[in-house]
Amino acid sequence: MSDQDAIDAIMAGLSGPALGELAELYRDLHRHPEPAFEEKRTAGIAAGRLRAAGFEVVTGLGGTGVAGVLRNGDGPTVALRADMDALPVLEATGLPYASTATTPDGVPLMHACGHDMHVTCLSGAAQLLAAGRDRWRGTLVALFQPAEEIAAGARAMLDDGLFDRIGTPDVVLGQHVFPNPAGTLLISPGEILAAADSMEIRLYGRGGHGSQPERTVDPVVLAASTVMRLQTVVSREVSPFERAVLTVAQIHAGHKENVIPDEASITVNLRSFSPEVRRTLLAAVERVVNAEAAASGAPRPPEIRTLNAFPLTVNDGDATARVREAFAGRFGSERVPAMAPLMGSEDFGLFGAEAGAPSVFWGLGGADPDLYARAEREGRLREDVPGNHSPFFAPQLLPTLPTGVEALVTAALAWLPGVQR
Amino acid sequence: MSDQDAIDAIMAGLSGPALGELAELYRDLHRHPEPAFEEKRTAGIAAGRLRAAGFEVVTGLGGTGVAGVLRNGDGPTVALRADMDALPVLEATGLPYASTATTPDGVPLMHACGHDMHVTCLSGAAQLLAAGRDRWRGTLVALFQPAEEIAAGARAMLDDGLFDRIGTPDVVLGQHVFPNPAGTLLISPGEILAAADSMEIRLYGRGGHGSQPERTVDPVVLAASTVMRLQTVVSREVSPFERAVLTVAQIHAGHKENVIPDEASITVNLRSFSPEVRRTLLAAVERVVNAEAAASGAPRPPEIRTLNAFPLTVNDGDATARVREAFAGRFGSERVPAMAPLMGSEDFGLFGAEAGAPSVFWGLGGADPDLYARAEREGRLREDVPGNHSPFFAPQLLPTLPTGVEALVTAALAWLPGVQR
Amino acid sequence: MSDQDAIDAIMAGLSGPALGELAELYRDLHRHPEPAFEEKRTAGIAAGRLRAAGFEVVTGLGGTGVAGVLRNGDGPTVALRADMDALPVLEATGLPYASTATTPDGVPLMHACGHDMHVTCLSGAAQLLAAGRDRWRGTLVALFQPAEEIAAGARAMLDDGLFDRIGTPDVVLGQHVFPNPAGTLLISPGEILAAADSMEIRLYGRGGHGSQPERTVDPVVLAASTVMRLQTVVSREVSPFERAVLTVAQIHAGHKENVIPDEASITVNLRSFSPEVRRTLLAAVERVVNAEAAASGAPRPPEIRTLNAFPLTVNDGDATARVREAFAGRFGSERVPAMAPLMGSEDFGLFGAEAGAPSVFWGLGGADPDLYARAEREGRLREDVPGNHSPFFAPQLLPTLPTGVEALVTAALAWLPGVQR
Amino acid sequence: MSDQDAIDAIMAGLSGPALGELAELYRDLHRHPEPAFEEKRTAGIAAGRLRAAGFEVVTGLGGTGVAGVLRNGDGPTVALRADMDALPVLEATGLPYASTATTPDGVPLMHACGHDMHVTCLSGAAQLLAAGRDRWRGTLVALFQPAEEIAAGARAMLDDGLFDRIGTPDVVLGQHVFPNPAGTLLISPGEILAAADSMEIRLYGRGGHGSQPERTVDPVVLAASTVMRLQTVVSREVSPFERAVLTVAQIHAGHKENVIPDEASITVNLRSFSPEVRRTLLAAVERVVNAEAAASGAPRPPEIRTLNAFPLTVNDGDATARVREAFAGRFGSERVPAMAPLMGSEDFGLFGAEAGAPSVFWGLGGADPDLYARAEREGRLREDVPGNHSPFFAPQLLPTLPTGVEALVTAALAWLPGVQR
Repeated sequence: MSDQDAIDAIMAGLSGPALGELAELYRDLHRHPEPAFEEKRTAGIAAGRLRAAGFEVVTGLGGTGVAGVLRNGDGPTVALRADMDALPVLEATGLPYASTATTPDGVPLMHACGHDMHVTCLSGAAQLLAAGRDRWRGTLVALFQPAEEIAAGARAMLDDGLFDRIGTPDVVLGQHVFPNPAGTLLISPGEILAAADSMEIRLYGRGGHGSQPERTVDPVVLAASTVMRLQTVVSREVSPFERAVLTVAQIHAGHKENVIPDEASITVNLRSFSPEVRRTLLAAVERVVNAEAAASGAPRPPEIRTLNAFPLTVNDGDATARVREAFAGRFGSERVPAMAPLMGSEDFGLFGAEAGAPSVFWGLGGADPDLYARAEREGRLREDVPGNHSPFFAPQLLPTLPTGVEALVTAALAWLPGVQR
Repeated sequence: MSDQDAIDAIMAGLSGPALGELAELYRDLHRHPEPAFEEKRTAGIAAGRLRAAGFEVVTGLGGTGVAGVLRNGDGPTVALRADMDALPVLEATGLPYASTATTPDGVPLMHACGHDMHVTCLSGAAQLLAAGRDRWRGTLVALFQPAEEIAAGARAMLDDGLFDRIGTPDVVLGQHVFPNPAGTLLISPGEILAAADSMEIRLYGRGGHGSQPERTVDPVVLAASTVMRLQTVVSREVSPFERAVLTVAQIHAGHKENVIPDEASITVNLRSFSPEVRRTLLAAVERVVNAEAAASGAPRPPEIRTLNAFPLTVNDGDATARVREAFAGRFGSERVPAMAPLMGSEDFGLFGAEAGAPSVFWGLGGADPDLYARAEREGRLREDVPGNHSPFFAPQLLPTLPTGVEALVTAALAWLPGVQR
Repeated sequence: MSDQDAIDAIMAGLSGPALGELAELYRDLHRHPEPAFEEKRTAGIAAGRLRAAGFEVVTGLGGTGVAGVLRNGDGPTVALRADMDALPVLEATGLPYASTATTPDGVPLMHACGHDMHVTCLSGAAQLLAAGRDRWRGTLVALFQPAEEIAAGARAMLDDGLFDRIGTPDVVLGQHVFPNPAGTLLISPGEILAAADSMEIRLYGRGGHGSQPERTVDPVVLAASTVMRLQTVVSREVSPFERAVLTVAQIHAGHKENVIPDEASITVNLRSFSPEVRRTLLAAVERVVNAEAAASGAPRPPEIRTLNAFPLTVNDGDATARVREAFAGRFGSERVPAMAPLMGSEDFGLFGAEAGAPSVFWGLGGADPDLYARAEREGRLREDVPGNHSPFFAPQLLPTLPTGVEALVTAALAWLPGVQR
Repeated sequence: MSDQDAIDAIMAGLSGPALGELAELYRDLHRHPEPAFEEKRTAGIAAGRLRAAGFEVVTGLGGTGVAGVLRNGDGPTVALRADMDALPVLEATGLPYASTATTPDGVPLMHACGHDMHVTCLSGAAQLLAAGRDRWRGTLVALFQPAEEIAAGARAMLDDGLFDRIGTPDVVLGQHVFPNPAGTLLISPGEILAAADSMEIRLYGRGGHGSQPERTVDPVVLAASTVMRLQTVVSREVSPFERAVLTVAQIHAGHKENVIPDEASITVNLRSFSPEVRRTLLAAVERVVNAEAAASGAPRPPEIRTLNAFPLTVNDGDATARVREAFAGRFGSERVPAMAPLMGSEDFGLFGAEAGAPSVFWGLGGADPDLYARAEREGRLREDVPGNHSPFFAPQLLPTLPTGVEALVTAALAWLPGVQR
């Protein structure tokens, strides 16, 4: 479907100094990570480049979000999305362009999840597609999203009237750098990333002296029993053919060994791959937590506060087949392996869901292929190839960067009709 | 208060053949144990002897209960109580008069709790007091109660109008043979035996194939979580200065390893020494059981069925002091030690509670004193001296029997005013 | 690969009276269910028909197993397998040929899992292939296995020297009737049925009176805590991308509400789809059970007794593709849907594993297609279409029976080279 | 035994200005609370007053402890003990002399347990007894102990050679102000305060991402299961006739809702009234904690670190009878009620234990008697009368202070033989 000549012509714009300039952009972004909803510098750079390339640009979307629109004749609207926020991780890569940035409170910051690469690739692809607009028709949208890590940025942009302001896309495309060999693109249809729901739960008891439990409602026992009961949600309430996780990663109560506290708090982190399972998990948590409080005779019911909610990331079947075919035609099938579903989560899917449009999300290999191959042989992939969120995570600039740019261009052109010359 | 001359005169009736005859009665009763509410033969013997001694006799009280009344002039009414039922235990004493009796279903029966001794002593004391009625004034009541072991007989007699039919006593006295040295009488004021409440609880789930837990509500998990939660009742809800036990002695669910059953059942056995603690325990069981069912999403709430309920046995302070003093005057203080409270239970206390009269319950030593002394020296009391309900339980006939008779006579005369001669 | 002419020629033998005779065989077998390892009548019928068809026959294999061998020139050895045992289910189908059989103890028996259909189809296919032996070359083996339901029959035949006595097959084929539309054949490569391991675990405590827990080691608490802890195996130790079940379907302890028993017993039923997960589950059960006993201060360690162990059923990729292609060519693709993996289990896989040969196991639809279609529309498949082990389970004779025969013939001929005529 | 004339003569020294001066000392101490082992100012004041009264004084005992010895002829050695440390409580009494002190770190400090009253009373009694030394013979020891609140000060003084340096007492006496009516002295023989043992337990797991529990050993589940299991120690392993508490008042694990942490920590606080029960509790905690770690497959065993250990406080029978009789003779029986045992704890008992001497510890009422009486009538004692450790705890200066002084004098003279004049 895509026209290799058109892609060739457009990608020609990346050769030589242009790639060097993009690499410099990447290093600059990497050196200047910004936390969720604070991506002002990053957003400014993205917006400036879009404008320079001829896009109409809307900024401040949902806080720091940026949208660029390039209307280029009749044809579908294709949205390409990148996320911008960094993580509170102390960089340990030792790279010359390693981050030393911190928040005002001194929390270290690092682009440990590769969003700098996402921004760079999309900036490059937008520029190339704009420069080569005589080879295609339609409308190109570039979305630079804040706050992906806390599942809040996509929602914020949408709630800020994104599609009212720039139009509704016919397809939404996105990519994420993963610790797979650089040069590969991982893509599969269907559910590829889990939905994730997190909540903080306060369990109320009644405190007192440690020697007089009968005058208290012990919140430590309540929390412990709740944690044990919550184990039965996955073990008994979810089909073994479904994929689900319920993790209580935090439990806190008490300040002194002889004083029974008034309350305990736990967090619950749920992962699921279907709306039904998600509903089962959410309902079970609420049921168990309330019943356990009742079993303790708690003076008041627990409070469940949502921390974040990542939607399920689902690649549309037809749209994914189209992108995959375009990738295979461009890069060769051997560079386009299937992407195994991950329990990790994204808020990318919200754009397509809100638009009522198909969306496709693929993986961009970023690991040194030799290192990867050796680690795989030795069964040490997890140990030797730093994964996302690791303080050692650092995509290999080449060929990751040009592959990511070319993937976006190729995928976009799978929808934007070519112009015969 | 009691008059040693009067007791001497009355007890003179026990010498020689009379004691032999009573011993024969004991051996006969021991040979013919009858289960709860089936004590027809025992009741018949007791009633016959009361009639022969001049008592007015009411039979069939609450089934098989017997009450004898001897009105002997002005004065208080003193009730002496014995229980009659045996236990489903296969006797292993090897005694010449050991039981070989069974129920019609073949369940072995044994007087493993000494109720045969209680009946014998009361029969003897009633006979002696009747024969010596010129030495005292007032009304003597002899109560032979069925079904003590299942906490049902006292209630049944009372509900059958006992006090309407024979008058309300001013004091109720009773004794129980224990594995203490024969010849001793154990007595203390206050709470001496625990209240006990037992219930069976059916926990409803929804069954299904073992490979499809998500289509079930697993009652095994529900029962297990309930058992664990019930542990917190004593550990957290009862003051350490109180005495309480909550035992789940039975748990049953399932018939096949790959079929999740529809329900589970547990029993709960509660022991307490105060009405407040008892209420705490009962309320906590109900609260926990219902909340745990809710935590499981049970299709219907648990059913809690009372199995039995033994009241707290409380010795009235003044009345106990009076009996104790009478015993000390008659037997010497060294033969009247304090009785440590026991977690075991009795329904004796219901008579006094219903009458609004004080009641006193004491222990009658039944163990071979030499055996007891040796076992105590060697720290092997529990191992070497068979306790109540053991298949080896066998009070030593002498001096247990005459001591038990004399204790009843002595205690009765502590209330019945002497007649000067 | 298979030759439609050859199949046509062979299947021609089923027309008319031959099919009627097979249907009568099915009804006869249905009327006479026999429990595991007691399949004497069934085995006798199978063996007799094999002999009549010209097979060399070995009987009494592993008890009641039967193997027939038909050597027909050079070529591969193809084994077809059927299982023979019935279930302790009281038939409720209301069919004219419904079972009224029982074990000597009065336990009702029913072919509630369709093994009568398996035996009939294999008898028919063996007869047809023998009659048409001029259309193929090689060796045909027909295996009639006892005791599939208790995971013991395949093992017993193999341990009895099956392959030493009849030779080792190059491929093993089997089918199972399922509540899918009659006329369809369900087939997929890979893991299609779970491995299942069941065990009974005795947890030892130390009994005593319910009022004296401190003198006991309470096995009810031990069992409850063990059940709760076992929930964490699936919730915490198995990847959400794996399929696993751990069910405790039985828990039993105690006989009286006031007597803490000496021990408790539970059963554990494990389901897994990979050897690694299976090892994880088995190791976790052993670890948890022993540690929980230690936490209770148990007087001796638990005893874990294996009840049964079903292997994972894995369809060989190439062999399954070959069978599927043969089915599609014979029945049309629309009648050969994929078979979704089931958590249920089989011991069929042991034959191929022992032979070192690929094996293929497919589903044979047995439900009334109209009933099935309506139920599917109404979302009432589970409610309206009786499944295996249901007292209402009854494959529709036509077209289930001839489809099952033809499937076996077709699959066998996918290996047995045709003879040109 | 005690000589009212002698007491009268000695107590005469307290009238008027002397009492005013002592009251001023109390207010000064109250204004200047010092934490455990930091009682330098308090110790200096106590030592100075002892020296001024004629005592030989040893300071710096076990850090900040002070001992004064007054040798006054033949006769027994009587030790009187007071503790000096304050608590990290923000005073809320509103008193003119309320504390505003803090630690260098800003933690507020308050004499919320009345140790200021203990120091004042002992200073006064020591001074009076020294001044009146012509009325008695023997040796008087005044002990001012640091760090009672953390169960460390008595041990520290003893380990610093206390009795080697000042001689071994024949009896050790101490008092503690309680929220009972001022003017009363509470005293009973036997176990009056519980032993308390506290420990921190680190439970080791292996952390990881919340979506991959199978790659972790979840310490939150381990901690929860441990807490539930620890409930069974009191519910199943301690006789209902014993008094025991096991409280887990702190549980902490995890920093982020999607990151399973490496470890969890809990604290355990044990209370007991007999060495046997204490041993049972300690052994059970160790057993349960280790077994639960094993059940989780923990990478390394838990670490149990003792936080503090308070001994059982046992009043010697004979010595207590002697003090009680002296109090009754001096104050009248109605002002000397029995002291009910408390689950609270003290390290006072270590002195007598180390000395091999009897010890007696009594309660000194400090509450406003009118307030107390009204609260008692209304069943609001706990709500209306501030207890020890409350930010509102404030003994009523009169008559608490002179009663406390006179109690010490009276108790001391119950041992020190009078001198006839």
